[in-house]
Amino acid sequence: MEKQYVVGVDIGGTNTVYGLVDVRGTVVTSGSIKTAIFPRFEEYVDALYEAIMTMLKSHGATDQVYGIGVGAPNANYYTGNIEHAPNLIWKGELPLARMLSDKFGIPVTITNDANAAAIGEMTYGAARGMKDFIMITLGTGVGGGVVCNGSMVYGFDGMAGELGHLTARRNGRLCGCGRHGCLETYCSATGVVRTAYEFLEARPDEQTILRDRHDLTSKDIYDAAVAGDKMAKDVFEFTGKVLGEMLAEFVSFTSPQAIIIFGGLAKSGEMLMRPLRESFEANNMPIHKGKVKILLSELKEADAAVLGASALGWEAKQ
Amino acid sequence: MEKQYVVGVDIGGTNTVYGLVDVRGTVVTSGSIKTAIFPRFEEYVDALYEAIMTMLKSHGATDQVYGIGVGAPNANYYTGNIEHAPNLIWKGELPLARMLSDKFGIPVTITNDANAAAIGEMTYGAARGMKDFIMITLGTGVGGGVVCNGSMVYGFDGMAGELGHLTARRNGRLCGCGRHGCLETYCSATGVVRTAYEFLEARPDEQTILRDRHDLTSKDIYDAAVAGDKMAKDVFEFTGKVLGEMLAEFVSFTSPQAIIIFGGLAKSGEMLMRPLRESFEANNMPIHKGKVKILLSELKEADAAVLGASALGWEAKQ
Repeated sequence: MEKQYVVGVDIGGTNTVYGLVDVRGTVVTSGSIKTAIFPRFEEYVDALYEAIMTMLKSHGATDQVYGIGVGAPNANYYTGNIEHAPNLIWKGELPLARMLSDKFGIPVTITNDANAAAIGEMTYGAARGMKDFIMITLGTGVGGGVVCNGSMVYGFDGMAGELGHLTARRNGRLCGCGRHGCLETYCSATGVVRTAYEFLEARPDEQTILRDRHDLTSKDIYDAAVAGDKMAKDVFEFTGKVLGEMLAEFVSFTSPQAIIIFGGLAKSGEMLMRPLRESFEANNMPIHKGKVKILLSELKEADAAVLGASALGWEAKQ
Repeated sequence: MEKQYVVGVDIGGTNTVYGLVDVRGTVVTSGSIKTAIFPRFEEYVDALYEAIMTMLKSHGATDQVYGIGVGAPNANYYTGNIEHAPNLIWKGELPLARMLSDKFGIPVTITNDANAAAIGEMTYGAARGMKDFIMITLGTGVGGGVVCNGSMVYGFDGMAGELGHLTARRNGRLCGCGRHGCLETYCSATGVVRTAYEFLEARPDEQTILRDRHDLTSKDIYDAAVAGDKMAKDVFEFTGKVLGEMLAEFVSFTSPQAIIIFGGLAKSGEMLMRPLRESFEANNMPIHKGKVKILLSELKEADAAVLGASALGWEAKQ
């Protein structure tokens, strides 16, 4: 009998989510472990193996898994390594695919989390049937996945799609990557908070709820904007403007049918989407105006990454 | 007997070059007509047809042509139309592929000139064997061709690769496309001239050969730089810096094995290449530093476009 499942794993800086997925893309069951509590990478991989094996045993599926797909920060599709991920506690090159494959005895394929989300969206979500689209994930950082001619663009070395590190403002904000002005420093959850602090400093006499808060989060700013706070609304206006400018850059590059937005900030609704769409259309070249859709992800946040990663599990089938 | 030739056509704003190309990529013979002397597009197409037929007859090749490939500004691979090309005298949508195909009775495929050059480079030049690379053409304007996974990226609507219209300076110089700060306004031949005039105005007391010239061209500025003129050298320093910054953006996007530079400005040698390489490496993300080659085109300027376009002529074979 054909093996009828794949396992998808989504590794985040805080949590690792895994799921058992059937041929129709249903997440049959899923679970999670903490990512950052294991000082050594080997211990983390052991814990992940045990957790997944427990899940498989409870579903009688230990011999039914065709392959495992993993989405992880800075994961290289070609080498199978996680390479120098700033958001993980383990440094250097981590041979994750080989380590998991040795333990499970089945093929393991990895890619970065944004690529995994793009594959999920292409297979089961808003990009079904599209051959050219771009995925942008707005989380703690900003990630990207580029699909051209129906194929994921991994690039020469497996490291393509670093859309969060395109330059939104030349000589702008310092980024974790060591460079300045990256999109990620403006349009991630942390970028939104930086904008709020900049506005607070630049407009010292303006009354705003934000001034009374300590340790602002993007959620605080969203709540303040919904409550009608002028400065908080301006923060989203600015974020949408910068994001729209940069999505127009993406269009000049690969002319996608749609750009799909995913992640925490995508839940801000019209507060973000209205200025984003206005800025996007204003900044598109005439030949592209009105042609490219901006869509919100159709997948549940947890599912998209696990589903996308799981789709990689079938690749060994070719 | 199998048909053994294709015809490649390179349509520029001033000249149209065409060539008869054999299966090994040799340009057997070639010719040219003026592009801009025909007020009506139909007259131009008639003249092009006559010129190519004359060439074919003199080589006894009228029945030996498999297909025709055309590189032209704003040419859409999918529709076969030239769409609103600012550098051509005919406006609107010009159904070039259909018109030529009706006349010759063989398949005609068109794409923009930078894509044609990229295909030429991939098939016969510096990108032989590469699956992921980017072509950038530095002429009167700046064009781009993006190859991922071994395939030309045309995008959803055939209009991908407008790399000359990525934003080098937010709110920067006005571009012919109606937007501001496009790479083309800085790193084309005309962009170099604009930089020189800006420097002349900003540094009114500086002695420079450039101040004595009227109607500066990029060639004048190059000659002045070679002669040791400080301001002219600064113009190339600035041009290389901006271009290096933007090539690093390309790398974050698709992580190519190489970026291939083509066109008039590419002949400026180290005057452009040294600041370009320095800026490129300084602006690349740490994960990309030292990995991506910047190469000069290996094809003669005329040949690259004709050869690249001609390669499209074989596509009907599939």
